[in-house]
This record gives sequence, C-alpha cells and structure tokens, in this order.
Amino acid sequence: MLFDILDILGTIAFAISGVLTALHKRLDPFGVFIIAFVTAVGGGTLRDVLIGNTPVGWMLDMKYLYCIAGAVVFALLFRKRLSYLRTSLFLFDTIGLGVFVLVGIEKGLNIGLHPIICIALGTMTACFGGVIRDILSNEIPVIFRKEIYATACIAGGVMFFGLHLLNMNQQVLYIATALTIVVIRLLAVKYKLELPSFYKD
Amino acid sequence: MLFDILDILGTIAFAISGVLTALHKRLDPFGVFIIAFVTAVGGGTLRDVLIGNTPVGWMLDMKYLYCIAGAVVFALLFRKRLSYLRTSLFLFDTIGLGVFVLVGIEKGLNIGLHPIICIALGTMTACFGGVIRDILSNEIPVIFRKEIYATACIAGGVMFFGLHLLNMNQQVLYIATALTIVVIRLLAVKYKLELPSFYKD
Amino acid sequence: MLFDILDILGTIAFAISGVLTALHKRLDPFGVFIIAFVTAVGGGTLRDVLIGNTPVGWMLDMKYLYCIAGAVVFALLFRKRLSYLRTSLFLFDTIGLGVFVLVGIEKGLNIGLHPIICIALGTMTACFGGVIRDILSNEIPVIFRKEIYATACIAGGVMFFGLHLLNMNQQVLYIATALTIVVIRLLAVKYKLELPSFYKD
Repeated sequence: MLFDILDILGTIAFAISGVLTALHKRLDPFGVFIIAFVTAVGGGTLRDVLIGNTPVGWMLDMKYLYCIAGAVVFALLFRKRLSYLRTSLFLFDTIGLGVFVLVGIEKGLNIGLHPIICIALGTMTACFGGVIRDILSNEIPVIFRKEIYATACIAGGVMFFGLHLLNMNQQVLYIATALTIVVIRLLAVKYKLELPSFYKD
Repeated sequence: MLFDILDILGTIAFAISGVLTALHKRLDPFGVFIIAFVTAVGGGTLRDVLIGNTPVGWMLDMKYLYCIAGAVVFALLFRKRLSYLRTSLFLFDTIGLGVFVLVGIEKGLNIGLHPIICIALGTMTACFGGVIRDILSNEIPVIFRKEIYATACIAGGVMFFGLHLLNMNQQVLYIATALTIVVIRLLAVKYKLELPSFYKD
Repeated sequence: MLFDILDILGTIAFAISGVLTALHKRLDPFGVFIIAFVTAVGGGTLRDVLIGNTPVGWMLDMKYLYCIAGAVVFALLFRKRLSYLRTSLFLFDTIGLGVFVLVGIEKGLNIGLHPIICIALGTMTACFGGVIRDILSNEIPVIFRKEIYATACIAGGVMFFGLHLLNMNQQVLYIATALTIVVIRLLAVKYKLELPSFYKD
C-alpha cells in the first residue's frame, strides 16, 4: 500500500520532469504529453519488452495513464510556479528512483534471472525513461554525461542482493535498498558529486 | 478487400515520405531504404512489440516489404518529379492515417485492452513510424512540435468508441472513424491549424 | 566451439568500438559502459524483441555481459594505445559481422521465417548495435550515410540462401557466408568503396 503510493508519487515526479523538458524544447501539447508519458513509464516499458512481459504494464493498469495525464495538466497550469515545488519534486523523483529499482529487481527475480541482470533491470526501470525522453528531445542522454543517478540505482541493487544473501526479510531488503539509493542521490546532489572523469580540460 | 488496398496505399505513401526525408538528409541507398521502411511499418512494429504480438507483422506478411521496396525504387527513379504527385501522396498519406488507426484499435480490442489504450495503439500505429524516422534522422519528431496529425488520430479513435457505445455496425464504425481522421487532417492543412501554443514569442 | 570464440571476439570488438565512440562524446563511465554494451548486443536485442525471443539473449547467458565489461575496462586502461591494435580490432569487428549475420539468419530459420526476413534479421543483428550506438550519441547512424557495411551483410545472406538452395551442408554454408561478408568488407575499406550516391556536389 505504502509502496503503491510511493510508486505513484515517483510516476508523477517523472512525468513532471518530462513536461519541463518538453516545454524547454517548445513542444506542442501532444509532444508535451508524450514526453511526460515516456519519461514516467519508458523505463518500465523497455524492461517489460526485453523480458517479454507483454502487453506492457501501463496497458493493463490504467492508473499510470490517469496519474500522468493529471500530472501533465497540473504542471501546465502551474508551470510558472513549479519552481516553488522544486524541492518536493526533487524528493518525489528520488523516491521514484528507489521504488522503480525495486520493481525492476522483483520482475527479474520472478522469472529467475541472474542477480546482475536483476540489478540491470532495476536500473533500467528507474533510469531509461529519462534516456528515452532525452533521445526524443534530440539530446545525448544526461545520465550518460553527468550526475550520479544510475550509479545510485546500481548501488541500491548491490545492497539488495547483499542483504538477500544474508537472508534478511523482504521489508528490510526494500527499505535498505531504497534508502541506499535515496541517500546516495541526495549526497551526490548536495556535494555535486560526479563519476570520475576520463577527460582533462 | 477495399481495406487491404487502402492499407497498401497508405504504406506506399508513408514509405515515399520516408524516402524524401532520407534524400533530404543525403543518406546512401541503404539508409534511404531503412528510413522508408521504418516510416511505413515502424508504428505497427512498435505496437506489436508493446502488446507482445511477435514476430511482428511485416515478418509474416511479405507484401509490406515488397510494396515498400517497390515504392522506394519508384520514388528514387522519379524523385525529380515527385512534386507532381504531391497532392496524391498527401491524400494517400492521409488515407494511411485513417486505415492505420483502425488497424491499431482492432489489435487492442482483440486482446481486450481498455478503449483509451486502444486509441493509443491506433495513434501509435499511424504516427510512430514518422517519430522513428525523425529520431533516426536526428530530428525532434515533427508531430511533437507542430501539425495536427496525432490529434486527428485521437479524434478518430474517440469517434470509434463513441459509435461503438451506440452499437453501430462495424462498417459504419470504420467509415466514420476514417472520415473523421481524414477530414480533420484536410481541414488542419488547408487552414494551417495547429494545437494551441504554450509559448509567446 | 570455433563459432563461440569468433562470437566472443566480435562482441569484444563491437564493445571497444562503442567505448571509442563514447570517449569521443566525452561520456562518463556509466555512459561509456552503456554505449559499449548496446553496440555489442543491441542488434541481437532488437532482433530478439522483434521475433519475440524473450527474455533477450544477453539476460540468459552471462558471458556477454562479462566479456563486454572486461572489454570496457581493457579499452579504458589502454585507451591511449588502442591505435596500436587498430588492425586487430578492425579484423575482429569484421569477423563479428560475419558471425552475427549467421546467428541472425539461424534465429529466423528456426521459427520458419521467409529467407528475405532471415537476411534482414542477420543484417539487423550485425549492424543495428551500431545504429543504436549512434542514436544514443545523437548522430545520424553512420551506416545510413556511408560505408559498405550492411551491404556486405546482405550479400552474405544472399550467398547463404543461394548455397542453401543447392543443398550444401551447414559448414560450407557458414564458411562461405562469413567469407563473403569479410571479403566484401575488406575490399570496401581497402578501395574506399561506397554505395553509389544520389547526390552531386
């Protein structure tokens, strides 16, 4: 139940981040909606397609479509004032990361995939909506260039399977994984951490 | 039968629009063919992948490949004179929209998806070949920026399910849906209609 | 067995070509790994998704992930000296083309698809990792613009089915197909062959 609420909050935050990107690119209303939609569900859709879990999730559970549509309307109406919500949106977005990684890992475990593949699926669920958003917006995906984002997801996944080995119960697993992701992400943003660079300027 | 002919005309028109984009980007013959192909079948392919209808349609019915190959050769041979065919091509393209939306809606209905998802599948079938074409050509998809195109498809889908509720027979459904799409598209182009803009210059 | 070794050599060569592209685009370590990964397995992944062979191959056989990870680390450590390996890498890359085309053709044959579709699947397996790499790097795919690359794959596929008609045994088929691809590719690079151009400058 709590998990479902966090899932929805994350979806909404992802959708709104899509709206902001789309407005920045001056897209029309249809474009804004599509970018918001793929940002929110694109990662999970890619995951479902790659593991053969079709029809993909958002086609079978209408709540995602409704929440995203609501978030788009809200974000468009209040787009001049979204900056007041910046902290909340950032928080929901970070919670979304944690929840989506867990969803992806569970989908992989359910069909007996290797832990490393499960971590990849979790990271994909959390991060590849943003990748598709950037491709559709004709940008090199931002998570390939900077920001500790995928790294936080991978660290959370490693934590998950570390505790899994120790036979922790599911609740501990979930909370520790999500907390790992949230804390790394918050620290990374606070201290402007990036992955070490290969390039000297 | 008529439906099949219209389907083919639409496929050809979509393929030729792909050829024109590819020539504009100065692609080589292989690139021209691939862009024509994805423009023509990319929307249906994405739909099939997302609903799990695999192998995707064009792998099982060779007529699409042959028609597209023929259209590409034709368009390349007569590329200096395609402007004489502009009106016909525009008409076929618009007919294609109508037919492809119907195909997508039917695929969704067949597996019991929600009407809104069916409309999304219809719109995807009609419009996402062009989106993939634009991504491969390194452009922000044109239907995200301007043109009443997806909007016409969505309106057609709404018409379909409105009449469906009224228990109209299939033929009426099909004709009314396709006409809605064609008329909105024609009016939009004639009067240069666009979706309302969020941006002031 | 030999086939498996060649498959791995090709995968490694493709991954390293991905690393080089990613470094050129100044991506961070995560971006470098993802680009290397999609370059190496993206073509096969797209093929598996389109024919419904899911979970896709690299999720079930961990050797691809390990080889790619190893290749990425190697390429990053020795990136200043990779130019000494240029000839070997080019050779492995070309071997990869031959092997991947054969893998794709066999996957299509196994589910009874038309020979032309099998050739398309082989070409896709060999070439579309590079296409996805270029899209993620915000470039028009290089094989749409120049280079005899896909053409060599298609020619190999035609050779395969030509000999297939003549009831040649599998070993002859495989060797002749791979040789056709390798020889065309080598000649094309040596003599700087390109597909004929539609454009005059």
